Amino acid sequence: MNMIPTLYGHSLALLTDLYQLTMAYGYWKQGDRFGNATFHLFFRKLPFQGGYAIAAGLGTVLEILETFRFTAEDCDYLRTLRGNDGERLFEDGFLDMLQDLELACDIEAVPEGTAVFPNEPLLRVSGPILQCQILETMLLCVVNFQTLIATKSARICAATAGAEVLEFGLRRAQGIDGSITATRAAYIGGCSATSNVLAGKLLGIPVRGTHAHSWVMAFETELEAFDAYAEAMPNNCVFLVDTYDTLEGVRNAVLVGQRLRARGHELVGIRLDSGDLAYLSIEARRILDEAGFPAAKIVASNDLDEQTIESLRHQGAPIAVWGVGTKLVTAFDQPALGGVYKLGAMQLPSGAWQPKLKLSEQRIKTSIPGRQQVRRFFNERGLVGDMIYDETLGVSGDRTIIDPDDPLRTHLPADDCQFVDLLQPVLRDGKRVDPRPPLESMRDRTAMQFHDLHPTVLRLLNPHVYPVGLEAQLHALRESLIATHR
Amino acid sequence: MNMIPTLYGHSLALLTDLYQLTMAYGYWKQGDRFGNATFHLFFRKLPFQGGYAIAAGLGTVLEILETFRFTAEDCDYLRTLRGNDGERLFEDGFLDMLQDLELACDIEAVPEGTAVFPNEPLLRVSGPILQCQILETMLLCVVNFQTLIATKSARICAATAGAEVLEFGLRRAQGIDGSITATRAAYIGGCSATSNVLAGKLLGIPVRGTHAHSWVMAFETELEAFDAYAEAMPNNCVFLVDTYDTLEGVRNAVLVGQRLRARGHELVGIRLDSGDLAYLSIEARRILDEAGFPAAKIVASNDLDEQTIESLRHQGAPIAVWGVGTKLVTAFDQPALGGVYKLGAMQLPSGAWQPKLKLSEQRIKTSIPGRQQVRRFFNERGLVGDMIYDETLGVSGDRTIIDPDDPLRTHLPADDCQFVDLLQPVLRDGKRVDPRPPLESMRDRTAMQFHDLHPTVLRLLNPHVYPVGLEAQLHALRESLIATHR
Repeated sequence: MNMIPTLYGHSLALLTDLYQLTMAYGYWKQGDRFGNATFHLFFRKLPFQGGYAIAAGLGTVLEILETFRFTAEDCDYLRTLRGNDGERLFEDGFLDMLQDLELACDIEAVPEGTAVFPNEPLLRVSGPILQCQILETMLLCVVNFQTLIATKSARICAATAGAEVLEFGLRRAQGIDGSITATRAAYIGGCSATSNVLAGKLLGIPVRGTHAHSWVMAFETELEAFDAYAEAMPNNCVFLVDTYDTLEGVRNAVLVGQRLRARGHELVGIRLDSGDLAYLSIEARRILDEAGFPAAKIVASNDLDEQTIESLRHQGAPIAVWGVGTKLVTAFDQPALGGVYKLGAMQLPSGAWQPKLKLSEQRIKTSIPGRQQVRRFFNERGLVGDMIYDETLGVSGDRTIIDPDDPLRTHLPADDCQFVDLLQPVLRDGKRVDPRPPLESMRDRTAMQFHDLHPTVLRLLNPHVYPVGLEAQLHALRESLIATHR
Repeated sequence: MNMIPTLYGHSLALLTDLYQLTMAYGYWKQGDRFGNATFHLFFRKLPFQGGYAIAAGLGTVLEILETFRFTAEDCDYLRTLRGNDGERLFEDGFLDMLQDLELACDIEAVPEGTAVFPNEPLLRVSGPILQCQILETMLLCVVNFQTLIATKSARICAATAGAEVLEFGLRRAQGIDGSITATRAAYIGGCSATSNVLAGKLLGIPVRGTHAHSWVMAFETELEAFDAYAEAMPNNCVFLVDTYDTLEGVRNAVLVGQRLRARGHELVGIRLDSGDLAYLSIEARRILDEAGFPAAKIVASNDLDEQTIESLRHQGAPIAVWGVGTKLVTAFDQPALGGVYKLGAMQLPSGAWQPKLKLSEQRIKTSIPGRQQVRRFFNERGLVGDMIYDETLGVSGDRTIIDPDDPLRTHLPADDCQFVDLLQPVLRDGKRVDPRPPLESMRDRTAMQFHDLHPTVLRLLNPHVYPVGLEAQLHALRESLIATHR
């Protein structure tokens, strides 16, 4: 039920930067000179000053790739583009080629819901360089955003220590599928439901909601409004109590709760949406308990994020359900993940792979060459460290992993560690490999990461750094390529 | 050519919060009790600590409303939703009503590209309360985001003092139409082109792009890569010069520029994407000028925003074209506008309008009642101040405008000021009123605001506060409703 692109009536092949198409045109003009290439999609820095990220977006990517094609209309549009001399940018032969293009790429990817770290490829894309290049921008757009939101969601859900989190972000989301894919990623990260009905329908995610302030304002009194709601929908009563006076609102909710009970229904809870949530939740809990509603839940919302939730919990706020909107779906404190897509190797006419490197003044921006795989070491206590290795060079006997940004930092997983390779085939010659995993399995995987990562890595503030580095031969290859280019 | 929703193959009626539908169900159960209502969409605080915002998103809203309907499939989905007792949330009669629903709302709105300020309605929606409520979340999602991005774009374009700004944000945007509607709003705010090809096709916005680092890395040398690009696309040569060594890259661009010139073409420019942009642009300019390429433009990109652009300009960086991505399309320093949608009045059976108010512990969150219009006063030197008035009460002889958050702050536009009312009809009984204005006219309107607003209101840091307030009778009405509710 993982159907984002059915939202679109339009081919998404043009969802790319123009320079991908001008480069594709350049490659096409080169004829047979270039064969296959391998690109890696990775990020250099963890978001939110956190200790981990949660991979997401792959399902959406695969849905888009399944229907990838340049339509005649797309090519007609490209035919209209002009260069600085007023002449057309693209020859007809190139546009004909685009219209006939069938994807022939292979993709390996880290499963959604997996904890990931800087420099590790989340996706590895191999195939004709022209095709790899055209896909770049869409892949970055989808994976950057969903990984960002799944990570934010995981941080928020971890801060509630197991309480339920509802995603309420549609009204402040960045665009229509900015909201729908945020809902998807938030669910993978651990949220249990959304207010977004379209996302619920398209993705099969549970939806939740009761009423707003305007419902209360439409009636003469708050009590009348609660009564009318309970009359209409007795099995969905979470009363929003802060339209006029919050604690008075709780008392009105109790009155209507008693009438509901007399009719054989139960008050589900109340919602606080303003004011001091610690004070109000403690007082509301007391009123509800004293009135015989210990099972009625307190739902809280109003600009919440992982920090405010942690603080409210430390103050003993008896909040059972957290409604999180703006700060979650926009990743408010860092609204973009800086994922990049870099050429790692090109295939020579002989079939051998030639590693490629991009230099930079900053070491952190110098790329990692090769065709990479990620080996995750673990023991019975949890995850130990990740090694990025080149599939051509393989892994030498030496398990030392070397920090790509600071080669003096190394880490040696103990001999008794087991390992698993993270990148798994998801696309072969343009065709999807796997059946579609359900979102629930990705959500479960996220929950497992919390179990497997050391608690100090999960910490919100100044987390412990999880070890990630290069395999020794890959490190040596990179150093020699840096020396060559300098 | 303002065709966002053609991107969607799906009805967007369900793009709403579930609580809008549960409230709609409640209103439906009330039968004829409630007539029409009026809601206002407005924000309480300017984004980016700035002095103004630029309204945007209306065109997208109207496109969505033109095709608004609940499909049988939508209703089948709603039929599956359950309450806490496992029983259905919605009766069939309600779902039948939804499936037959035809929009009967009226909307007045501020034209896109207009400068807007806190508390002023950007949209006023009147009609059956059930319908107004269902539309709320979609209206907020679209208008919040596009207004945010148009404002960011305007700030960035103002900081360049007339130089060209290109929007390059797709790879870091929040979702697919998070990118496309950001492109739309960025164009309204003043950008002149985008890298996003699909946005170019759907919206008719100019597209721009040449090549990436990977193009250079695919060849044995940078010079060979530039030559190959110039061979393929001689009328679109802006060489990215920082793959290995930036100034060496500029010298290679000059060599290829000379060969281009010999073939009757001209080097358009070079692009800098890393390093110290002030130093590198000054040095690159010198190399280009000395080599006889004074017309070749320097394009700069790399995490730019209005502050870095202003700083680079103050350092004399000879940058002719600014490529702005992440910080623009995500509104990085404030990725959400806190726009809200509040009930202002309800129609009584007599046809008279009853004003409505929401109280709050915080004065800034106490709503403004009535059916509002915004009167903008101006004289030959520019804009003077805005008065929010109630259309039923009208405007008394007294032109004093009273700050809704601090009634001691008042402002009196001089008698010789002219005025214009900002809200204009755009939807009547669910049907679009106007022809579709082209994006260019909205972009031109934004440019006019810069001319009409005082330069101190445009200032990035601690801008002068533009006067906005309530008309005297509306102020008195609000105070009396506050007193009644307390």
